[in-house]
This record gives sequence, structure tokens and C-alpha cells, in this order.
Amino acid sequence: QWMMLDWKPRRSDMLIDPFGIGKIVQDGLVFSENFSIRSYEIGADRTASIDTIMNHLQETALNHVKIVGLLGDGFGSTPEMCKKNLIWVVARMQVVVDRYPTWGDVVHVETWVSASGKNGMRRDWLLRDYNTGEVLTRASSVWVMMNKHTRKLSKIPEEVREEIGSFFVESAPILEEDDRKLNKLDDSTADYIRSGLSPRWSDLDVNQHVNNVKYIGWILESAPQAILESHELCGMTMEYRRECGKDSVLQSLTAVSDAGAGNLAQSGHIECKHLLRLEDGAEIVRARTKWRPKPVNNFDFANQVPAGST
Amino acid sequence: QWMMLDWKPRRSDMLIDPFGIGKIVQDGLVFSENFSIRSYEIGADRTASIDTIMNHLQETALNHVKIVGLLGDGFGSTPEMCKKNLIWVVARMQVVVDRYPTWGDVVHVETWVSASGKNGMRRDWLLRDYNTGEVLTRASSVWVMMNKHTRKLSKIPEEVREEIGSFFVESAPILEEDDRKLNKLDDSTADYIRSGLSPRWSDLDVNQHVNNVKYIGWILESAPQAILESHELCGMTMEYRRECGKDSVLQSLTAVSDAGAGNLAQSGHIECKHLLRLEDGAEIVRARTKWRPKPVNNFDFANQVPAGST
Repeated sequence: QWMMLDWKPRRSDMLIDPFGIGKIVQDGLVFSENFSIRSYEIGADRTASIDTIMNHLQETALNHVKIVGLLGDGFGSTPEMCKKNLIWVVARMQVVVDRYPTWGDVVHVETWVSASGKNGMRRDWLLRDYNTGEVLTRASSVWVMMNKHTRKLSKIPEEVREEIGSFFVESAPILEEDDRKLNKLDDSTADYIRSGLSPRWSDLDVNQHVNNVKYIGWILESAPQAILESHELCGMTMEYRRECGKDSVLQSLTAVSDAGAGNLAQSGHIECKHLLRLEDGAEIVRARTKWRPKPVNNFDFANQVPAGST
Repeated sequence: QWMMLDWKPRRSDMLIDPFGIGKIVQDGLVFSENFSIRSYEIGADRTASIDTIMNHLQETALNHVKIVGLLGDGFGSTPEMCKKNLIWVVARMQVVVDRYPTWGDVVHVETWVSASGKNGMRRDWLLRDYNTGEVLTRASSVWVMMNKHTRKLSKIPEEVREEIGSFFVESAPILEEDDRKLNKLDDSTADYIRSGLSPRWSDLDVNQHVNNVKYIGWILESAPQAILESHELCGMTMEYRRECGKDSVLQSLTAVSDAGAGNLAQSGHIECKHLLRLEDGAEIVRARTKWRPKPVNNFDFANQVPAGST
């Protein structure tokens, strides 16, 4: 369904974007922006980390709202939302990574919004390699409104619908929703548990809450090292259930599908289930991740050591 | 001494840098690059974090080496260094932050290298607000060579000196060296100790080592919350003593000068000493940080809550 986005490499002088604010294309409904992958955005495999990808999703979402003139308080709320003390919170996020870019690659991100049911908004993203047009990542998310004082969910008020409705694209989600139920994990169903996770000062966003992107790092804290070393994350679905504040202490739980079947490092595709919860048991995020064996042509320092050296 | 860098706002079409690779100015000896500050690079105060600043220092250093054609293995070593299995390691880093940029600001970074003693290299940076020319940050670092297999320090071989010597600028350091001895902290001299810190998978760089920038987060883990909330980091000196690998478990120690003198939150300038060490006591980094009260005009969500709301 993302055929609507008619990709063609554009003249490079049309892509000049020195100040990181992208532009509106497609009759004002699709926002696009380029990112060059920096050395500090890559990990041990020399490819961009999933955090980097998620950061670029967040940045383009905010810049989209900003460029259409709807940025009220500076972090995604429209003027009418600010008046009513409403903020957007993410309820669900689904990401599929076909290939991770590497240092120096330029990633072209396109994003747009649609209605999601009566009181939600869907935001989709399509990431491509700027030079080749190859699709790198697709992502789809559902957002709902919350009153920032009562922390209760809210319907979309009519005044807000008037602000944002004209920006809604009518299109199917870029990813077919993985609607398999995310079952709750507990101590007996989890294979790995990591306790005592707490936000660093630098994990907090301007609302003094932990930014959504940081949850991914914690989810992966309980994934077994063998998977992280031999596999790469190729898909992820997250259901956000509760906020996490600066004094929260979390536990990360992971269950590996068919974990008993043998050596993880030599497995093909692997699927995991995850839960982030407070120590009192309250659920923060349920997630499912999919993993594929790492491409063999990744640059590997270890293999450069000449035989016989220490 | 940074008068050598004759700042003038340039025509915007000369600063276009869509792919994040900057350019060489000043007769080929100074490399410059612009960064726009992203939403995910700011913290609870809406300003760029010190990590972000340090990341930009790293990125410009690497791009400088890349653009002059001296990037051998892709992470800062020259071709001759690669042949001899030599890598650069940072021995000392000093940073002074006059003002932190905020989301959407464009930061203009200039960097250059000089000799440091017989077997070291100094790299300096000057960061300005692109629009006003205001100096934001100055930083100076000393690098030495290490054999990547033996992990022993090395002299600069003649072949390497021939590669890099012609890029050395003859200038005084941009920061006068803070040469007060950094004393070793221990359990009896530290005011705060945080134990059990270990690298996340995403903290590792392509050498499977913890990136220098990550150490700062750990150093600040033992800084008291009261300082982080009321003050901002305005200066930092770090002495790197030992590498930290992926299985290391660290302790972070902080001593606050005149800690007994009263309420930290209401103090003026504060100076702290820090130590990162392995649990067996081996020293990783010694550091000194300086803090000033936060500017009062920072956007503060808490103050937006109307009186009477919950």
C-alpha cells in the first residue's frame, strides 16, 4: 500500500537541508527529511542501532507538526491541545527493518498521519536509502490523547480535530497490523529477567518522563547476549500501557520462542516476547521482537586479527 | 588564542551540507561542519546534553580524518596505522561549555590538530551558534597511539608522522590546560558511590569497547540528583586511564567540594571530583566537573501547571 509514495531520486539540489528541517511533499500531506548516519549512531556491527532509527521517526514526526504550523508547546501538541492540557501518547508502535544503514549513508524518511478509529491518530513512516531508493524500514504507530494533569486518556476534542483533520491522509497502514495478542509475561513464563533498571538523568525528556525510545534499550536488556551477537532485530511491536517516571525501577522480562530447541546463536529466525514492568508488577510495555541471523558480510574486527597474534 | 579562527557568518549557500560531511577551511588545516540539534539530542532542560556535544566532537574528528583521505579502517586510524595495528586512544579531554544549544539551533563546529609533546596529538574544537557566531563550547584533547593487539602504548612511527604531520596546526591549545592534579578518589574520600554499572549492548562501539562518550553518563550516575536538577555542567576534565570492555562492571564515585557547606540546590558554582573504576579497583577515568546554577529562563513545564491543578 505504500505505492502511493512514488519514489524517484530527486535532483540533489532539491534535497539540500542544511538545518535539518525537511519539507512537505505530496500536496502537503507527506513530510520528508534526510538524515546522514553519524559515527555515534552506529553500534558494534557498524550499522545504525534501532534506537537511531526510532530517534529519526520521532524527529520527523515533530518536524512534520512544526512545519505545518501546529506546534504549540514545542513537543508535538497543537495550540488547541495546549489550551486543553492535552498531549499525544503513543499506544502502539510497529517497526519492520529490512536493512540497517551504516555510517555515512543518507536515509530519506517520509511520514504522514491518518485517522485511527474515532479517537486515535495513526502515523506511518517509510525510510529509504537516499541513493538507491531501497526500502530500509517501515513503521506504523497509533497515538491517543492524554490530559497531562489527570493523566487520563481523552477523546479528540472537536477543536483539535479541526486543526489536524485536514492533514490526515486516507490510506491503509504501511504495515499490516500484527494483531496477534501480546500475552502478558510473568516470572514463570519468562526465560530471562533483568531487574533494577532505572532511568539515568539523561534518559528523561522535557516532560521529565522517559522517552519512548529509551524503553527499547531496557527491553533488550533482558534479551540473551547470544541473540544480540548473532542476530539482528528485524521487527518489533510494542504496546505502551503506562508511563514510566524518573524514579521508576523496572524489570525487563524476555521469553524466547522455542528457546529449548537448541543453540540460539545458530538458530534461524527467532521470535521473542517481552515485558517491561514496575517492581510492583504494573505493566509498562509489552513487546514482541523478531530476529534474523546477521548478514555475514558485516565488517568484523575480530576476523582481522592475523592468525598467531595475541 | 582562537583568534586564528576568523569568524564571519558565511553565505548560507556555502554552508549547505546535506550529507553531513563538512569541509576544509583555513588552508586545509581546519575542518568545519554544521549540526542542527535534534529533538532526541535534548534532555529534560530542553537543551542539548553533554553527550550530544561530545558526539559532535567525535563525529567531526572522524570526518576531518576522512575528508583529508587518511581514514584507513573506518574509525580514525590512518593507512599506516592500520598496517601497524595502531589505533588512537584519548588520554585527556577538557571541555568548557559556555551555553548549551537547544532544539533547532544550528551549531558550527571547527576542529584542528597539533603536535602534543613528542608522541601525542592534540585535537581542539570550537563550537559556535551558527546564526550569531556566539561561542558555545571549547574543547581540547590529547591522543596517543596504542597497539590494538598488545594494548600497549606506542610512539608515533615515522611513517605515520609523515602522513599526519602536514596537517598539524601550530597554535596554543584553545583551552589553557587545567593542570591541577586529579587526585584518586576512594571509598573514604567519595561522597557518593554508585555500583554495578555495566555496558548495555548499545554502548559498544565497533571495537567492542565502550565508547569514550558513554563514560560521561556513568560519571554522572554518582553525581547527586540535586546538582543535576539545579545546576548545569559548565566544564569537565577527564583523564582516561584504562579501557573498559563489554563485560566490565564499574563503580562511579563522586566527591563534591565543600559538600558540607549547605544545600546543594542553592549553591553557586560547584566543583566535583569523580572516579570510574572496575570493581577490583582498577581506574578507568578520573574526572573533574564544574557546575553553575541553571539559567532561570529555561522552559519549565512544572511551572506551567496552573495553580490549583493536580
